[in-house]
Amino acid sequence: MYRTKTNGELRLTDVGCEVTLAGWVQRTRKMGGMTFVDLRDRYGITQIVFNNEINAELTEAANRLGREFVVQVEGTVAERQSKNPNMPTGEIEVIASGLRILSPSATPPFTIEDNTDGGDDLRMKYRYLDLRRNAVRANLELRHRMTILIRNFLDSRDFIEVETPILIGSTPEGARDFVVPSRMNPGQFYALPQSPQTLKQLLMVAGFDRYFQIAKCFRDEDLRADRQPEFTQIDCEMSFVDQEDVLEIFEDMARHLFKEIRGVDLPAKLRQMTWHDAMRLYGSDKPDLRFGMTFVELKDVLPQGKFAVVDDAAYVGGICVPGCADYSRKQLDELTNFVKRPQIGAKGLIYIKYNTDGTIKSSVDKFYDADDLLKVKQAMGANDGDLVLILSGDNANKTRVQLCSLRLEMGERLGLRDKNRFECLWIVDFPLFEWSDEEQRLMATHHPFTMPNPDDIPMLETAPERVRAMAYDFVCNGIEVGGGSLRIHDGELQEKMFEILGFTPERAMAQFDFLINAFKYGAPPHAGLAFGLDRFVSIMAGLDSIRDCIAFPKNNSGRDVMLDAPSAIAQEQLDELYIDLDNDRLRALKG
Amino acid sequence: MYRTKTNGELRLTDVGCEVTLAGWVQRTRKMGGMTFVDLRDRYGITQIVFNNEINAELTEAANRLGREFVVQVEGTVAERQSKNPNMPTGEIEVIASGLRILSPSATPPFTIEDNTDGGDDLRMKYRYLDLRRNAVRANLELRHRMTILIRNFLDSRDFIEVETPILIGSTPEGARDFVVPSRMNPGQFYALPQSPQTLKQLLMVAGFDRYFQIAKCFRDEDLRADRQPEFTQIDCEMSFVDQEDVLEIFEDMARHLFKEIRGVDLPAKLRQMTWHDAMRLYGSDKPDLRFGMTFVELKDVLPQGKFAVVDDAAYVGGICVPGCADYSRKQLDELTNFVKRPQIGAKGLIYIKYNTDGTIKSSVDKFYDADDLLKVKQAMGANDGDLVLILSGDNANKTRVQLCSLRLEMGERLGLRDKNRFECLWIVDFPLFEWSDEEQRLMATHHPFTMPNPDDIPMLETAPERVRAMAYDFVCNGIEVGGGSLRIHDGELQEKMFEILGFTPERAMAQFDFLINAFKYGAPPHAGLAFGLDRFVSIMAGLDSIRDCIAFPKNNSGRDVMLDAPSAIAQEQLDELYIDLDNDRLRALKG
Repeated sequence: MYRTKTNGELRLTDVGCEVTLAGWVQRTRKMGGMTFVDLRDRYGITQIVFNNEINAELTEAANRLGREFVVQVEGTVAERQSKNPNMPTGEIEVIASGLRILSPSATPPFTIEDNTDGGDDLRMKYRYLDLRRNAVRANLELRHRMTILIRNFLDSRDFIEVETPILIGSTPEGARDFVVPSRMNPGQFYALPQSPQTLKQLLMVAGFDRYFQIAKCFRDEDLRADRQPEFTQIDCEMSFVDQEDVLEIFEDMARHLFKEIRGVDLPAKLRQMTWHDAMRLYGSDKPDLRFGMTFVELKDVLPQGKFAVVDDAAYVGGICVPGCADYSRKQLDELTNFVKRPQIGAKGLIYIKYNTDGTIKSSVDKFYDADDLLKVKQAMGANDGDLVLILSGDNANKTRVQLCSLRLEMGERLGLRDKNRFECLWIVDFPLFEWSDEEQRLMATHHPFTMPNPDDIPMLETAPERVRAMAYDFVCNGIEVGGGSLRIHDGELQEKMFEILGFTPERAMAQFDFLINAFKYGAPPHAGLAFGLDRFVSIMAGLDSIRDCIAFPKNNSGRDVMLDAPSAIAQEQLDELYIDLDNDRLRALKG
Repeated sequence: MYRTKTNGELRLTDVGCEVTLAGWVQRTRKMGGMTFVDLRDRYGITQIVFNNEINAELTEAANRLGREFVVQVEGTVAERQSKNPNMPTGEIEVIASGLRILSPSATPPFTIEDNTDGGDDLRMKYRYLDLRRNAVRANLELRHRMTILIRNFLDSRDFIEVETPILIGSTPEGARDFVVPSRMNPGQFYALPQSPQTLKQLLMVAGFDRYFQIAKCFRDEDLRADRQPEFTQIDCEMSFVDQEDVLEIFEDMARHLFKEIRGVDLPAKLRQMTWHDAMRLYGSDKPDLRFGMTFVELKDVLPQGKFAVVDDAAYVGGICVPGCADYSRKQLDELTNFVKRPQIGAKGLIYIKYNTDGTIKSSVDKFYDADDLLKVKQAMGANDGDLVLILSGDNANKTRVQLCSLRLEMGERLGLRDKNRFECLWIVDFPLFEWSDEEQRLMATHHPFTMPNPDDIPMLETAPERVRAMAYDFVCNGIEVGGGSLRIHDGELQEKMFEILGFTPERAMAQFDFLINAFKYGAPPHAGLAFGLDRFVSIMAGLDSIRDCIAFPKNNSGRDVMLDAPSAIAQEQLDELYIDLDNDRLRALKG
């Protein structure tokens, strides 16, 4: 061992002890005949003192140390004269009697400080240096702690962790698979799992009763903000349970995590909101409940025949922004521009200021009289001093989604999206299907194995779009952290689902024969859920991006810039796999 | 919840309770007016009783249940008249008052019993049924328990689990990589990691100090017995440690596991054997120490000039098989045939029987006199009644390996390889390089990042084949369970290693620039080790194959026969990836 103590553990009680420390040079300071070195490791920082009067040679050596040198120091723990209450080791220092350079360092391309001077690209290229920063390492320590807590929690509830394979078969339904050519089976490909969905259902058929896995999953999708081609799920499945059983156990898990990690007590029972209510009140299936401003529908509140925009709209909805009646023209223009951005796509914004002096000022004063606007005030529950913002449109759900963006923007502006508050809820009663404009057919909202609500099964043939799923999402602070469903365990019902989704029986068998066959041998009722670990950690850590809780993340082009992967491979490797690059099209691509 | 109790928990103290159970029908038996159903779940089996006199309709329904039906039963716990002491629930039964079929079952293709009638292929195709068997599920439960113990142990020793990426860059050194074409980076490929080796070294550079990960690893090798294309490692790395520190901590971990899982106390300090001694005494770098029969070199014991085979051999070595002097001609012929098999490749076998009556009988009686053979007896430490088996050859190490096979065969025949005994040791002082006949160059015995023994560094240029590595293997019962090394943390030494391994500086940089660069910014001394989880579990479970502790293993062709993967993919998928199948060569391959 190169050390007898870490740099985080020495205290006043250790004064007088001989110690050996090792770590990185955070900084050196010369003061008179003294040289101070801050020695850093994962556990903390300890101040090392070299005294020129006592040992000139050693002090000279210390003076030559550069930032990030790795050194070993021998010395005696002493009480500091000027203590630093901001660091756990701040009451002591180590008077050096020996110094050994274990590894010199070139000058790092950015400073290893919480607030570094390194930009994103540089930090990713030198991720091994970025990871030296306390702020980044703390996220990964938190991630570790969360997985330990999760595993022990699930173990205590009789869940078994089972590793499912990474090299599986390709299933074109859903997102795009990454594929892996098989050398031993030339011309054939494995696929990397988008999730262990079917395999965990097979484990239920196998009687495993309670399964979990902290599982790597893969999706070859174009990477929008905060997506990674590989991501990690806390993947769970249980047998002989109803929806309430699943919600209860995973609420317990979330409660345990929030308590242990953040010291936060979630309520004894989380709120459950139907998908329909979530859309109606928040325009989102992942509402942020840290603040109000729920939607109020105004179509029937505003009188007809006065303003064509409102009259012709399929949906008119507003939010009441408390205390913002004093918004300036400029601020209101900003909001109008915000909702008109292409990403949001509203045509315009109606505002009504209910001023503190009782007067009303709105962008629709020429259409509606004070009486009309007072009706709105009442409907909205607005008080004097509040600002009401209204959107209208000819597609109700699209307009709700626009209003949702506005609501979140207002929450942001008013500082209501506090990262240290956690508002969790379940969204339930999702629609089983959703219409895909792209595919011109019904698609499974979750996946084709989701159980319909038994009450709605008669509508499967007649009004499938109205059938509710036994599906649920776990939402925290406006982010979908987890989701799952009861599964179909009846082969016939499963076949009907495939039929509604437009699978021919042949195609269903070609893709899912193992599952369809498995259901013939006694499938138990089962249900499951998966949490996105990256997202769960980032919420707990108060991060804006999942990237900051991943050791070696990829950029928006799916590249690891540190490893410079992906990259070209040798022709012999291609030959062994019986594949060729499509060089004509590649050349055309490069222009 | 479909049940109030599991099938493993009811006891005499529950008599009189109303319960609801759910599970699979293991078997039904009709006895007079009674029908007995054994209801099974992961937790156990409970006997359910239907009484025709009390409820004829219910009993009739029970009589129609087939094997593996999934049912829900309501009833009252009662004391059994004839108790079954072999099962934990054997003192009670449940008198049924309700029965509901949750899922019928077709007749399974093999019986769901510990000793099933299903062959290997059938069991793999219907793995979800095979996994219902207690014996198979118990292996996976053990695997789960081991990983929980391992994680909590390492956590308690300040190790952080860090997930490293699965999509990384291809490094042609070592085994063959699986590659993944990148759609977003056309013409380029990711590789799946053979191990997180370089990434964990970067984590040490990043100051993580103690890292572990239970990590999926991938090797596209032809699958010999007991290899899988994807396998799981307990992958660890530590900073500021010497070899003894690493051995101590992982010995502690092994001790903890053996104690918790098997109730076995490993010795307070494990034996360390040099690679050289292991080869000399056991002809193997993974000796099975559950029995003796260590090698004795006889070249200098037998007189020269009497038997050309011995005279001309570079190596003559024997083992003493206790109490086997009474082996018959037939048995000795079997052993001769055994060592002459092509997989072993010896030219012949010399035997000497030291009979209990003091006489000696050998296959070399016409060459050596009794005095010669008594010298052998003394050298071997043989007693009357023992059988000495001798191999000779012109390549010492090859002959030792042959003699190792013979030793293990004798251990097997004498029942000395007891699966309930565990003999663990460390092999140390491996050679840093080994000569590759295939490549006609020195190869790294472990990998190119292994630290040479500091005492041997002067020999790096002059006699590299004699340089010892700071490398160590953890061996249990003749199986290499883990291995690792101190790593080079000095860029210059690393460059010298690449040079000796025949890398040009350009090629070294092309493949390992991120690591070589990282070492310029203060790399701590570090070391690590990885255990093969599949192998560790299979030893703990007393299994012959790692396959039995993997939920969904692949066969020798790398196929998952249940999922039928790998398989052909759609032309559109190939097009998106800018690759083509090499159809000409594929056609030629298929003949």
